[in-house]
Amino acid sequence: MKTAFIGLGRMGAGMAACLCRAKLDVTVYNRSPERMQPLVALGAKGASNVAEACAGADVVFSMLADDVAVEEAALSPVGIREYLRPGAIHVSCSTISIALSEALAAAHREAGQGYLAVPVFGRPEAAAAGKLYLVAAGDGKLVETVQPLLDVLGQRTYVVSERPSNANLVKLSGNFLIATVIESLGEAMALVEKGGVNRHQYLELLTSSLFNLPLYKNYGGMIADGKFEPAGFAVPLGQKDVRLALAAGEELQVPLPFANILRDRFLELRAHGGDQLDWCAIGSLAARDAGLLPEH
Amino acid sequence: MKTAFIGLGRMGAGMAACLCRAKLDVTVYNRSPERMQPLVALGAKGASNVAEACAGADVVFSMLADDVAVEEAALSPVGIREYLRPGAIHVSCSTISIALSEALAAAHREAGQGYLAVPVFGRPEAAAAGKLYLVAAGDGKLVETVQPLLDVLGQRTYVVSERPSNANLVKLSGNFLIATVIESLGEAMALVEKGGVNRHQYLELLTSSLFNLPLYKNYGGMIADGKFEPAGFAVPLGQKDVRLALAAGEELQVPLPFANILRDRFLELRAHGGDQLDWCAIGSLAARDAGLLPEH
Amino acid sequence: MKTAFIGLGRMGAGMAACLCRAKLDVTVYNRSPERMQPLVALGAKGASNVAEACAGADVVFSMLADDVAVEEAALSPVGIREYLRPGAIHVSCSTISIALSEALAAAHREAGQGYLAVPVFGRPEAAAAGKLYLVAAGDGKLVETVQPLLDVLGQRTYVVSERPSNANLVKLSGNFLIATVIESLGEAMALVEKGGVNRHQYLELLTSSLFNLPLYKNYGGMIADGKFEPAGFAVPLGQKDVRLALAAGEELQVPLPFANILRDRFLELRAHGGDQLDWCAIGSLAARDAGLLPEH
Amino acid sequence: MKTAFIGLGRMGAGMAACLCRAKLDVTVYNRSPERMQPLVALGAKGASNVAEACAGADVVFSMLADDVAVEEAALSPVGIREYLRPGAIHVSCSTISIALSEALAAAHREAGQGYLAVPVFGRPEAAAAGKLYLVAAGDGKLVETVQPLLDVLGQRTYVVSERPSNANLVKLSGNFLIATVIESLGEAMALVEKGGVNRHQYLELLTSSLFNLPLYKNYGGMIADGKFEPAGFAVPLGQKDVRLALAAGEELQVPLPFANILRDRFLELRAHGGDQLDWCAIGSLAARDAGLLPEH
Repeated sequence: MKTAFIGLGRMGAGMAACLCRAKLDVTVYNRSPERMQPLVALGAKGASNVAEACAGADVVFSMLADDVAVEEAALSPVGIREYLRPGAIHVSCSTISIALSEALAAAHREAGQGYLAVPVFGRPEAAAAGKLYLVAAGDGKLVETVQPLLDVLGQRTYVVSERPSNANLVKLSGNFLIATVIESLGEAMALVEKGGVNRHQYLELLTSSLFNLPLYKNYGGMIADGKFEPAGFAVPLGQKDVRLALAAGEELQVPLPFANILRDRFLELRAHGGDQLDWCAIGSLAARDAGLLPEH
Repeated sequence: MKTAFIGLGRMGAGMAACLCRAKLDVTVYNRSPERMQPLVALGAKGASNVAEACAGADVVFSMLADDVAVEEAALSPVGIREYLRPGAIHVSCSTISIALSEALAAAHREAGQGYLAVPVFGRPEAAAAGKLYLVAAGDGKLVETVQPLLDVLGQRTYVVSERPSNANLVKLSGNFLIATVIESLGEAMALVEKGGVNRHQYLELLTSSLFNLPLYKNYGGMIADGKFEPAGFAVPLGQKDVRLALAAGEELQVPLPFANILRDRFLELRAHGGDQLDWCAIGSLAARDAGLLPEH
Repeated sequence: MKTAFIGLGRMGAGMAACLCRAKLDVTVYNRSPERMQPLVALGAKGASNVAEACAGADVVFSMLADDVAVEEAALSPVGIREYLRPGAIHVSCSTISIALSEALAAAHREAGQGYLAVPVFGRPEAAAAGKLYLVAAGDGKLVETVQPLLDVLGQRTYVVSERPSNANLVKLSGNFLIATVIESLGEAMALVEKGGVNRHQYLELLTSSLFNLPLYKNYGGMIADGKFEPAGFAVPLGQKDVRLALAAGEELQVPLPFANILRDRFLELRAHGGDQLDWCAIGSLAARDAGLLPEH
Repeated sequence: MKTAFIGLGRMGAGMAACLCRAKLDVTVYNRSPERMQPLVALGAKGASNVAEACAGADVVFSMLADDVAVEEAALSPVGIREYLRPGAIHVSCSTISIALSEALAAAHREAGQGYLAVPVFGRPEAAAAGKLYLVAAGDGKLVETVQPLLDVLGQRTYVVSERPSNANLVKLSGNFLIATVIESLGEAMALVEKGGVNRHQYLELLTSSLFNLPLYKNYGGMIADGKFEPAGFAVPLGQKDVRLALAAGEELQVPLPFANILRDRFLELRAHGGDQLDWCAIGSLAARDAGLLPEH
């Protein structure tokens, strides 16, 4: 099976490397060509544009930052849809809106191509190690076809629906859940700290008892340290995902009161110049509102 | 060391049984005397009132439902303060308000008695098995004195502060955190379910990947099943803890936006007759707001 | 000055009629042609499409339901921009998004045409009576040019900015303010009614003392009566305006906590089939949450 | 009818003066005796304690700052209940909790005394001019008896219920409504100002069109000016009233989402040292969150 991989950011680079290490036939493409070098070193072919990447491919993966980048790479006149052969499959791994995922599904269907949404959970290290969790949705036969590739990328694939955009919905809901963990830790820490409890000790208590989970440890640790740079996942990206979750809620008519609060937290951070911070910096705002922290 | 245990509800009974099994000299007291039987069978002496329980005791534990019960048992004319000998220690394990914990501290100090707040995390099964997590605060020497007893009750004791009420604050903040888990799962499930994803499958995905934690599994499972009876921890108790967390936030001047939303959830449940439900029934309200569930 | 008026809904019909009664040279256009009849009876010429309406016009007013309708009427290949002569002015009175208003400004600028945003406050009766409040923004000279026409339409014109979209921002913020009045009345009425106070009497008290304002009387009366049909301004329109206000807040990085709550109220109403209700039906949800009203 | 007036703060002094000017037989009492002087100059007798004020009185008014002050003045061993003769009436005008109002009702009933709750709307100037709005609740015959006195104090009396505490509920709900006006103006102004609209001009627009009401003008003006000192009604008092409204909502099981937001606003202000500000300073926080204002 001839495979192409478009988008070699922190996540995509690791994923493409896994495919290379599995001795698959991989062509890679990235807008900034220097990021293709390490993959070529691992045996990939480098393409100079999307058209070249798609030429002859059976499966094209894309892993890009946001709706704008995916729309450009997939639906523009120089995009995947134009160059992918009928019958081949586009596996979109990016975290994108429900609306765009549905537009991709329709566009590929019209062009006689397959389309799967397979967003992922996990950080760059998990991507590099082939340890991601994959959330797949779309036609069952297509999933079967690409399953061997997905097995290379992740430790488990969850097939959630025949409707591709449902995988995106699950991904957005998952990021929403993570953001609620951050906010709730921020509030709880502000409360106990203002009462006189040391927040590092408090976090150790939580994460060695009822909240013994990397999510709570990692984000809790960053909040306790007040250290939000360098960003693993920056504020504008976190804000985007909450925005997309809210947009999905609006489309589906589902009120999401916790998401509203997250929305305002991100706006406040950005209004005060927090774009370069890790998204878990929203967990510092409760302490700030309580008068515990130096002002922005 | 002569020990007394007052309050043999689902939690207290298990804790007292642990002390008995450890071959300690234990006197128990409960308002409904029939609940003392199993403990007597384990070797405890049964007292017919608080005064009798306190007679000669070096350490008195209390584990009661709420502020009203604790105030009656500890501060009334027939309460612990009246009958505990100077130098003996009252270990209060109940989940109570900061204000009452501070009143207890002051009252015992005046009476020349010791006071520790040692609220616990864990369910009745953990209490029965001596596997609780204990959060202790108060004078360090007193903690040292009772530590052997605490070791019988729990798998670990976290000493968080010299100020007893800080243990209560930590306990309240912990229950707040659990409630945020419930609400966020309720919102996320409503969102994906209305989009067409099966909520049991969704929960399995979450709890076998990023949210692999009993808390998410247990409460998520109840929400997915829509089964909130019989209550392990009933709505009025959950509401009480959120109310006390908010009261602590008000006292300490810490805004808690997530807690506000939880507050309204509990009010809505109670206004619709949900008093007998498990507190995680608040996790069903997002689905109801989204038009997914039959109305109350 | 030759004038055209596009969009003869409940608001536009009244506004166009004012222009006719002022003996101005008016051409009208509406997609459903039967709505042009009453205007023709008042002396207007009827056009059979936007092109014909624009032919020779010095000023074209548009008053349409939403972004989609305005985009179609103004920016499509059969829209105002294509047919308006250079130097003529498009006066957009619709309640639209900041983004579309800025797109219109750019498009007309490129085409050498003038563009003013002049959204209005007031109900259909005020439109018919020439008693609207007009909020104008754009180039000062253009405002001056059309001022005599605006004087026919409204009792007062507020010029708020040189930037057209700022008039739309003011309009959206105004509708947001009205929606907060509705929600706050809904909450206050639910509270006092559940305590045993008659809500009609309560409203009379409010509106004859501190809240002596038609807004409070009218919306309060509908909430007290529980009568939300027929809709003067339907739920999806109210929702749209809150959505646009939130979108403006997101663009400008301004958290709007009250608007978040309004957002959820509209979603809940729509999820329960409330599309045909007047938007002030959100004022009934507090009572429903409190268990006072029959369920949806 | 022999009348006593207890509590000569800014409101009480004006009310008592009205009674004096109406040539009634008035005895006044205030803890700080110097505030009695101006009333004595108007013909009142000065009492040196509550007992003396109550001696021979047919009606005793009380107008005090909060629950603590009212409880001391009415229910303590040196309070009104001890000294008022059976059959005489206590008219409580203070803004107090539902719970205290019900405790007062019960205490006076037991003592064979009458009790009416008659909280007022209006500022000190309205009190001095006899132009208050009075909200009365309690036994109808008692209201009839004191009506001539109420007519001296206010421009209108609204009798809302036979249950005294319902008047307090209405008062609390009214202050809640005023606070929502402040918050919504704060959000709207932050939004338009960040978009580039002058907030003074914006306020003039609002208050000369749809929001032509002193409430919007006065509070809007203070927010636009950013001038919150000296306080007409200080932050802790505003916070208290929102707290009492929330407490009433909790007791009656009525969720109040807008009130939750107000609650957090007051906490944030106080956490940053805003106790001496006028309560409408909460209207500045939206702008601060949006990065528009200098930090606290």
